Amino acid sequence: MAESAGGRRKGGSKARRAAEAAWPAAAGVPYITRRVPPYEVLDEAALLTIEANADRILREIGVEFRGDSGALDLWRQVGARVEGERVRMPAALARSILETAPRTFTQHARNPARNVVIGGESLVLAPAYGAPFVTDLDRGRRYATIEDFRNIVKLAYLSPHLHHSGGTVCEPVDVPVNKRHLDMVDAHIRYSDKPFMGSVTAPERAEDSVRMAEIVFGADFVDGHAVLINLINGNSPLVFDTTMLGALEVYARHNQANIVAPFILQGAMSPVSIAGTLAQLLAEGLAGMAYTQLVRPGAPVVFGPLVASLSLQSGAPTAGTPESSLVVFAAGQLARRLGVPFRSGAAITTAKVPDAEAGYESANSLLASSLAGVNFLLHAAGLIEAGLSVSFEKLVMDLDQCGMLHVLHAGIDMSANGQALDAVWEVGPGRHYLGSAHTRRNFHDAFYRSPLASSETFEQWHAEGGLDMARRANRAWKEMLDAYEAPPLDPATSEALRTFVAERKASMPDAFV
Amino acid sequence: MAESAGGRRKGGSKARRAAEAAWPAAAGVPYITRRVPPYEVLDEAALLTIEANADRILREIGVEFRGDSGALDLWRQVGARVEGERVRMPAALARSILETAPRTFTQHARNPARNVVIGGESLVLAPAYGAPFVTDLDRGRRYATIEDFRNIVKLAYLSPHLHHSGGTVCEPVDVPVNKRHLDMVDAHIRYSDKPFMGSVTAPERAEDSVRMAEIVFGADFVDGHAVLINLINGNSPLVFDTTMLGALEVYARHNQANIVAPFILQGAMSPVSIAGTLAQLLAEGLAGMAYTQLVRPGAPVVFGPLVASLSLQSGAPTAGTPESSLVVFAAGQLARRLGVPFRSGAAITTAKVPDAEAGYESANSLLASSLAGVNFLLHAAGLIEAGLSVSFEKLVMDLDQCGMLHVLHAGIDMSANGQALDAVWEVGPGRHYLGSAHTRRNFHDAFYRSPLASSETFEQWHAEGGLDMARRANRAWKEMLDAYEAPPLDPATSEALRTFVAERKASMPDAFV
Repeated sequence: MAESAGGRRKGGSKARRAAEAAWPAAAGVPYITRRVPPYEVLDEAALLTIEANADRILREIGVEFRGDSGALDLWRQVGARVEGERVRMPAALARSILETAPRTFTQHARNPARNVVIGGESLVLAPAYGAPFVTDLDRGRRYATIEDFRNIVKLAYLSPHLHHSGGTVCEPVDVPVNKRHLDMVDAHIRYSDKPFMGSVTAPERAEDSVRMAEIVFGADFVDGHAVLINLINGNSPLVFDTTMLGALEVYARHNQANIVAPFILQGAMSPVSIAGTLAQLLAEGLAGMAYTQLVRPGAPVVFGPLVASLSLQSGAPTAGTPESSLVVFAAGQLARRLGVPFRSGAAITTAKVPDAEAGYESANSLLASSLAGVNFLLHAAGLIEAGLSVSFEKLVMDLDQCGMLHVLHAGIDMSANGQALDAVWEVGPGRHYLGSAHTRRNFHDAFYRSPLASSETFEQWHAEGGLDMARRANRAWKEMLDAYEAPPLDPATSEALRTFVAERKASMPDAFV
Repeated sequence: MAESAGGRRKGGSKARRAAEAAWPAAAGVPYITRRVPPYEVLDEAALLTIEANADRILREIGVEFRGDSGALDLWRQVGARVEGERVRMPAALARSILETAPRTFTQHARNPARNVVIGGESLVLAPAYGAPFVTDLDRGRRYATIEDFRNIVKLAYLSPHLHHSGGTVCEPVDVPVNKRHLDMVDAHIRYSDKPFMGSVTAPERAEDSVRMAEIVFGADFVDGHAVLINLINGNSPLVFDTTMLGALEVYARHNQANIVAPFILQGAMSPVSIAGTLAQLLAEGLAGMAYTQLVRPGAPVVFGPLVASLSLQSGAPTAGTPESSLVVFAAGQLARRLGVPFRSGAAITTAKVPDAEAGYESANSLLASSLAGVNFLLHAAGLIEAGLSVSFEKLVMDLDQCGMLHVLHAGIDMSANGQALDAVWEVGPGRHYLGSAHTRRNFHDAFYRSPLASSETFEQWHAEGGLDMARRANRAWKEMLDAYEAPPLDPATSEALRTFVAERKASMPDAFV
C-alpha cells in the first residue's frame, strides 16, 4: 500500500476510513480502569469472623446441589461429604479448588476494541437484566416485546457509558419462552458489537448460546477465550437447582464465564442481619464457584452476590438502602480476599416511575457499588419497580450516571497540569479563572458534561417548557434511537446466524410457560 | 416526694411526665457517631504535594484580608509579611497558630439532650442555608418569607434525622435586611430546641446573635461554651472581606465557633482542576482558621470548604458531580491532617423541581459527603436550583436520606445477634427466614424504614393514586406541620427575647438592600 508521500497520505486516510467503516470507533473507553481505592467497611477481625462463619456453614450445614447426580459425583470424587443432595466440605477444600480460577479474564467482543477485562481494577457497566415489563412516558407500562429488547440493545450500544450489551435486557414475552434465547442472542450480535451474555434458563439454551457464539468467533476461539458471561443464580439459602447447575456446567465445559450469584432478599432468603447474610452468601459463593472449577479447572468465574433487603412490613423488596450499601462494601472485600472478580450492584429502585425516588435510590446504589470495587456491574441502567420493569427514560438517566462514574474512578489528576499552580499564580487574589490560560487549555475536558442536568436558570428552564428530567430523558432516548446505525456484521456470519436460529426454532413447538 | 409505695409510684410517674413536658424526649440520636471509616482517594505522596502547594501559595502569593486594619496588625505581630492588604506567611506559622484550635468541641443546645459534638467521629446534619426562594407543589416558586422560615425551622425540629436547626434556612425577604437576623435567631430559639447558627452579614448582627444566645444561656455560659456556629465564607480566590472578617472576629472573641469556608465555584473561583482547587482551598482555610486563633486562641473553628464545579458551557453551577465528590473526599483527608473538624457537603441539585435529577444529584452529594468524613453537613435537606430555592417536598425527601445515613454510618453489627448463626442453623437450605426466631426477634429494628419509598406493588400503587415521590412528600410535610408542637421555652426567656428584638428593631430604620 506504500505510495508517494502525497499518495500515501491519501491512501492511509482511505485505509483508515475503511477500517473505521469495518469497526466504528469505540466511543469512550472499553471499560473503566479504577484509579481510586475501593471503600472498605470491615476490619481484619470482622472479615476473619465472617470467613470462619462461612467455613462453618459449609462444613456443618453444607449446600444442596439439587437434581444433578453428576455434580454430587464430582464433589464425592474430591472428598466432600455427600448425603442425599447435601454437600458438606471443609472450606479449605472449596478454597483450594477455587485456586484454579483466574483472578482476571478478558471477555471478548466481536469488535476487539470492545473487549472488556473483568477483575482487578476494572469496572464493566452492563444494562438491566430480566424485567418482564417496559415503560415509557408515551405508551406507559406494558409487557416487553422483542422490539423493546432490540431497542434497549441499541441504546446500550449507542451509549459511550455502557461497556457491555448485557443479557436478558428485558423479557421479550411475545416470543415463545423456549425460543426467546435465540432471538435475544441474535439481537446482541446483530444490533451491537459489545460483549454479551448467554441464556441460563435451560442447559440446551446455554448450548444454543455457545453455538451462536461459535458462529461469530469460531469454535476454536470460543474454547480458548471467554466470549460469554452468564448469570447463575443460586436459590438461597444454600441451594443450587438443576436448571442453573445445567447452564453452569455447559458454560464451564466450554470455558465460558459464570457469575455465581446468590441473589438474596435479606430477611427472606438470608438472616435479617448483614453479618449473617455475608457469611451465608460467602458459603454459597465458595461452593458454587468451586463447582465451576470441578467442571473445568481454569474456567472463568465471578463472585456475584446481589442483596436487597425485604420490607418486613409489606414483604416487598427495597432498593438503594443503607443496608444494601453496607453489604456491597463488605462483599467486595470478601471477593478480593478470594482472588476472584466481583459482580454486584445495580441502578435499582422501587419507584414505579422515573421520579425523585428513582434518582435517590439508583444513585445511592450505583455510587456505593462502584466504590465497593465491583468489576461487573449488571443492571447499571434502566430498572425501576425493583427490577420488574425497564423505563426507557430511566435508562438514559442512568447512562448519564454511568458517565459520571468514569470521571469519579479516574481519580484526581496529580500531573503539573492537574496541580495548576500556573493558574493560581496567573490569577492571584480576588480575580477569576474563567479566562486564565489554564482554564482555556482545559476547557473541553475539565468537567463531566451531563446531557440531562438542567444547568440553565429557572427563568430559562421555565421559558423552555419547564421539563423535568424524565421529560428531557424521553426526548433523549428517541433522539438516540433515531440516530442508531447498526455496527457492520460480516454477511456470511449474519446469514449463518439466521439459518441457525430458523433451524432451531423449527425443531421445537412453541412453549409459553 | 417520697410517699407510700403506691403513692411513690404515682408520684414518680407524675414527676417523669413533668420532666418529659419540660424537655420532650429527643427523638433519634443527637448526632451520628460513625462506626465506618472515611473514604480516602489521595495517597500520602499526593497529600504531601497538595500541602506543599498550599504552603507555597501562602508564602509566595499570600491571602488578602480586606478592609480590616486590625487583622493586618495581628498578622504583623506574629511575623507574617504584610504588604497593603496582602498577608504572606510561612505555612509553618499558620499551622503552629492553628494548634490552639480544638480537635472537637460541643455545640450546646438549649435542650442539653440536643447538644452536638463537632469533629472526630461525629456527623451533624443541618438543613438548607441561604436560599432566597421557596417552592412547594401547591403554591409554586416564590420569594421566601419569615413564615416559610419558621415552617422550615419547625420541620427541622420535627425530624429525628436532622441534629441542628441551621441558620438562614431561607432568606425571609419580607423582613428588612437589617432586622432579619433578629427574627431568624428568635425563630430558631422559639420553634426549636436544637443548636443553631448566628448571623454573619454584619458584625453588629453577629453581636445581636450573641446577645440573644446570652439571654437563653447566660453570658458566662456563652463565654465558656460554643452555643453558636457561624458560616464565614471567604471570597475565593484568596480574599477575606471586611464583612466576613467582622463577623468572624465577633464570634471568635466570644469563643463561638467559626466555619471558615471557601465556597468555591471551581473554574471561576479556583483552577478548573481538582488538585489545583484543593491547594487553593487549603491555603485559604489555613489563613482564615489561623486568624480565628489570633483573635482568641482556643476558639472553635471548622475547616469548611464547599466546592461545586461550574458548567463551562452555560456558566451555571453544577451539583452532585463526580468532580465535587472527589474534592470532598480529598478535602476530608486534608482536614483530618490539620486536626480540625470538617464541614462540607450538601444535598444539592440544579433541578428546578423535586424530580429524578434532584434525587440523583442529592444522593450522590450526600453519600459522598458522608463517606468523606464530614462532621458538620450544612444544606443536608431542602435545596434545589443550585441553592437558590428550598423545596418543601425536597426537604422531606432529603430528611429520609438523612435517616438512611444514620444506618449506613452505624456500620455492620458483628455481635452474636448480628452474625445470626442461630438463624442459619435454624432455617437451613431451601427454606425461608421470615418466621425464624432471629427474624422475629429483630423484626422492628432490622432495616431502615423509609416513609416515602414506594414499596407496594405497581397495582397497589396505581390503585392508591399513582403518586410520585414528590406528591407523597407534599402530603408528608403538611402532616408534619399539622402535628407540630413548640418545645417548651421558659416564659421569662421568651419575654426577654421579645423585648430585645423589639428594642433592636426600634433602634434602626428599615433597610431592604
